[in-house]
Amino acid sequence: MGNEDYEVPENANEHCPGPQSESAGQSDACAGCPNQEACATAPKGPDPDLVSIIERMATVKHKILVLSGKGGVGKSTFSAQLSFALAAMDFQVGLLDIDICGPSIPKMLGLEGQEIHQSNLGWSPVYVESNLGVMSIGFMLPNPDDAVIWRGPRKNGIIKQFLKDVYWGELDFLIVDAPPGTSDEHISIVQFLQATGIDGAIIVTTPQQVSLIDVRKEVSFCKKVGLQVLGVVENMSGLYQPLSDFKFMSITESGEQKDMTEWVLQNLKEKAPEMLNLVAFSEVFDSSGGGGAKMCKDMGVPFLGKVPLDPQLCKAAEEGRSCFDDSKCLVSAPALKAIVDKVLSQLEVSRIEDGA
Amino acid sequence: MGNEDYEVPENANEHCPGPQSESAGQSDACAGCPNQEACATAPKGPDPDLVSIIERMATVKHKILVLSGKGGVGKSTFSAQLSFALAAMDFQVGLLDIDICGPSIPKMLGLEGQEIHQSNLGWSPVYVESNLGVMSIGFMLPNPDDAVIWRGPRKNGIIKQFLKDVYWGELDFLIVDAPPGTSDEHISIVQFLQATGIDGAIIVTTPQQVSLIDVRKEVSFCKKVGLQVLGVVENMSGLYQPLSDFKFMSITESGEQKDMTEWVLQNLKEKAPEMLNLVAFSEVFDSSGGGGAKMCKDMGVPFLGKVPLDPQLCKAAEEGRSCFDDSKCLVSAPALKAIVDKVLSQLEVSRIEDGA
Repeated sequence: MGNEDYEVPENANEHCPGPQSESAGQSDACAGCPNQEACATAPKGPDPDLVSIIERMATVKHKILVLSGKGGVGKSTFSAQLSFALAAMDFQVGLLDIDICGPSIPKMLGLEGQEIHQSNLGWSPVYVESNLGVMSIGFMLPNPDDAVIWRGPRKNGIIKQFLKDVYWGELDFLIVDAPPGTSDEHISIVQFLQATGIDGAIIVTTPQQVSLIDVRKEVSFCKKVGLQVLGVVENMSGLYQPLSDFKFMSITESGEQKDMTEWVLQNLKEKAPEMLNLVAFSEVFDSSGGGGAKMCKDMGVPFLGKVPLDPQLCKAAEEGRSCFDDSKCLVSAPALKAIVDKVLSQLEVSRIEDGA
Repeated sequence: MGNEDYEVPENANEHCPGPQSESAGQSDACAGCPNQEACATAPKGPDPDLVSIIERMATVKHKILVLSGKGGVGKSTFSAQLSFALAAMDFQVGLLDIDICGPSIPKMLGLEGQEIHQSNLGWSPVYVESNLGVMSIGFMLPNPDDAVIWRGPRKNGIIKQFLKDVYWGELDFLIVDAPPGTSDEHISIVQFLQATGIDGAIIVTTPQQVSLIDVRKEVSFCKKVGLQVLGVVENMSGLYQPLSDFKFMSITESGEQKDMTEWVLQNLKEKAPEMLNLVAFSEVFDSSGGGGAKMCKDMGVPFLGKVPLDPQLCKAAEEGRSCFDDSKCLVSAPALKAIVDKVLSQLEVSRIEDGA
């Protein structure tokens, strides 16, 4: 079968943000659409919901989407720590979780079991601190084990509600954490926010090729819908861990394990104590293909940096803590901080400009 | 806002596999549907496509879905290695990738750049070996970087085509690799396959709570749609790596790294050579919540076992190789093999029964 038998993505009008985003002006709306004719002749008219979204978003200075091609690359961990970092800089931050079937954000911000409330201004986010508000479908499930078994239109509906009904107040940053992929949630969030202006997308990946393949698709998506790629973060970029935090096993030929940790630590203390201060590094995920940096060069998008696979960062995410609050995240926190600074300088945001 | 304002998942008719799966019998079709009235009164009639699917699937003995709540837990790696393992046992195996936006299967089976062909019998899978055929949208993209920017209905359409138009021939096993979540792809595959009989689902997770939360949702999904959970695999369950495969760094207070690997290896060789034969273990992902085993006990589903985070397994996946072909995957291959055996014994399949 040749590919020509196929409705390849290029023919799809579905990703065209055109018809409904009238307020952006027709020429803008159809500019990125590969099927301009169908786009231009589709029935038009201002969507009243889009008008409400524009009004809501008028108090938000910067909007950043956090995307990934593949799941499980630490996208939500990154979104959470980015929000913590910005809030610690005294910015007013909102974090919106649009992963409808697998909302991780409530747990990662330490907000499990919280509920959202409604006022005459709209739905109130759940606040970690007075300058860090969070919205997620995770706050709406009567039982955390409940599966949200929804097809696309329903997911799009709740995303629209999040944008038009949540009262964020004045925000310096709205961080939007998206699920992996390039489907309903992604098409919708871009379509809904396009007229309000999106600063751009940060794409999170891991170093191995199988993840980078999907990131390339994500970059293609951004290009197609006219979303600026602020940059790519390479996460889980090798495991760095103090040697003294490991366990040591001997494995027999039959596969049995014997814990030798105490013996090793004692041995090292006696014979080579300087080794106990070292950090052991394992690549874990193969980066022989050049990792995120090479991919960025190939695709002409900025590389924001690497964040190592740090068990302490995983632990902070599990416990809903900021990795910046103590010095446990020895190697990951400085890496994340450098990335946040890069993003801010790209957006030309300084603490002074914002009067903090 | 109270949850009662909300159309909680329980009210959703969308996951109801009822109206279209007439051939399964109405009582069956609506049995799992929480909105039986709407379900029963929806317009009915045998879907001719479902009839075609039943015909196609008549030559497939066992159908297994591989699911995960969260992405990036190694679901596709597991699906690939499960398929390799079954094929090595001389079963006739088909591997169907229904991750439309992020197809990893072609790369993981070493089939990048291949195309599918059409014969008068239907679409031909791409074959790794004569008894291991693979189908994925990855084979249909003119450019591997292309994003598949499709909303749900389009994804459902291609999944239906995969089921009714692919000529698998006689199969012992059809392994279906699904994307993370509980949305269009999952509802559709169950709906399309229900009348043909699905043996069950294997759910892949990682040890940390943030992943287990989503797995609980996946188990709930299976229960709701009447899909048997064959068991849960805990993947990336700690890093096991020979100590001599690590690098060793000293990190200064300013964060600068100095590679001390040669010094360490030399030092150990002289002072404690027995240590070089040890395997170092790091938990990496926090399992203090009890991991997959506890979750399975809580939810009453079988636990199939743990697979360690083995860089050699990651490498095999990157290179599209079976981890069973050589002895490099020292710790992961035996763990995977034990899980495959458990699945076979659950399905009461032996090599003899199948005449291999």
